Amino acid sequence: MLYSSIENKKIKEIKKLYNKKYRQINDLFIVEGKHLVMEAYKNNLLVEVLLDEETDLQIDVKKNYATDNVLRYISELDTPNKIIGICKKIEEKPLKNKILILDDIQDPGNLGTIIRSAVAFNIDTIILSPNTVDIYNPKVLRATQGMIFNINIITKDLYDFIPKLKKDGYKIMCTKVNGGNDIKNIENRKKFAIIVGNEGKGVNDNLIKLSDEYIYINMNENCESLNVGVATSIILYELSR
Amino acid sequence: MLYSSIENKKIKEIKKLYNKKYRQINDLFIVEGKHLVMEAYKNNLLVEVLLDEETDLQIDVKKNYATDNVLRYISELDTPNKIIGICKKIEEKPLKNKILILDDIQDPGNLGTIIRSAVAFNIDTIILSPNTVDIYNPKVLRATQGMIFNINIITKDLYDFIPKLKKDGYKIMCTKVNGGNDIKNIENRKKFAIIVGNEGKGVNDNLIKLSDEYIYINMNENCESLNVGVATSIILYELSR
Repeated sequence: MLYSSIENKKIKEIKKLYNKKYRQINDLFIVEGKHLVMEAYKNNLLVEVLLDEETDLQIDVKKNYATDNVLRYISELDTPNKIIGICKKIEEKPLKNKILILDDIQDPGNLGTIIRSAVAFNIDTIILSPNTVDIYNPKVLRATQGMIFNINIITKDLYDFIPKLKKDGYKIMCTKVNGGNDIKNIENRKKFAIIVGNEGKGVNDNLIKLSDEYIYINMNENCESLNVGVATSIILYELSR
Repeated sequence: MLYSSIENKKIKEIKKLYNKKYRQINDLFIVEGKHLVMEAYKNNLLVEVLLDEETDLQIDVKKNYATDNVLRYISELDTPNKIIGICKKIEEKPLKNKILILDDIQDPGNLGTIIRSAVAFNIDTIILSPNTVDIYNPKVLRATQGMIFNINIITKDLYDFIPKLKKDGYKIMCTKVNGGNDIKNIENRKKFAIIVGNEGKGVNDNLIKLSDEYIYINMNENCESLNVGVATSIILYELSR
């Protein structure tokens, strides 16, 4: 099927998946570009693709075609991709030993970067607070560079869930500027959950109280703080070191 | 003086400083928001400020006032700042022992993040290739969180300048995915220059050839690469460790 009108119902439905509400209603999300589409395919999440007639995609999945005009209408990018994939959401998996907890991260680029670094440094599961930016936001997906398919991500009420993790033997760590332990000196790197806070506010006081250990990154006194994606990545690097 | 019209010549001149060409012609740049304005002031770079009539700013600098309408016209932010500072450019200082070289970084957020991390981990000087995004781009300035004033930044032709650094006894390192040395094992952390490459292309082959040592960050095989701001920050963290 070749779609040439942005008024077509199917095209309008795909476009709606840029909106979180419609992703939740349909349990679907969108990826743009061949790299992300192929990653979704490898992970058995690709339901169908929409592509321009000149693009060759040798995979066994339902294909629809669209004119440049339609692809430009759907895409959020200045230079629209020639391939758009419609995917079913990633299934949650059981927890393992290395957990990263994100408390209300708001910037899609930061969340995507953190997901990418978490895969790089062997985190098993990321737990998001309900107010964290949606992982299926297209900007998050782009910033993950496809790494979203290589890690388990679940959303939980942190105030309820962290005490359960403690009971299950996870050491709970959180970032705290004052009065913590230099990350170089962290012991027990086997079974842990690290809480990282929101860009502006850091970790919520009530979550700090639930923690077993406070940690910080030693840095020049001229610099008050690091970008949250950078800080999280350095902590994960150090723990995998 | 209270400016209430966006047609005013002075206001139009300030607005033009969002454009790199006009920053170069006038040797001036703009910072938005109290935090950045105060950092510029502390570093004797603040020439004058433009602020709304209700904002109290107790510093000894020429003040002009503007209506919300005018501030909204000038600002690039969705929620415009109440204070805009006009600054003279930062003077270059002599090199010291710890240098970071950036080869054509394009994303303003990445450059700002790298500058912030470079201050955190005690880099003395950042050397930029001529095609790197302008450090006085407002998005770069915001991402530095004011750290731009705490580090020496210069622009050089890298092909010409790196051989001079070698002659002066700097160890030249560059990031390279294959065939390098794990950053954990870097020796001689006293006098060095690290080359980091462009977001898409990495370090240019001809710069790789100029290097004394290739370095990489050890990571999970599922992850091909990290965000360039993250990778650079981890390397600087490791070298300051």
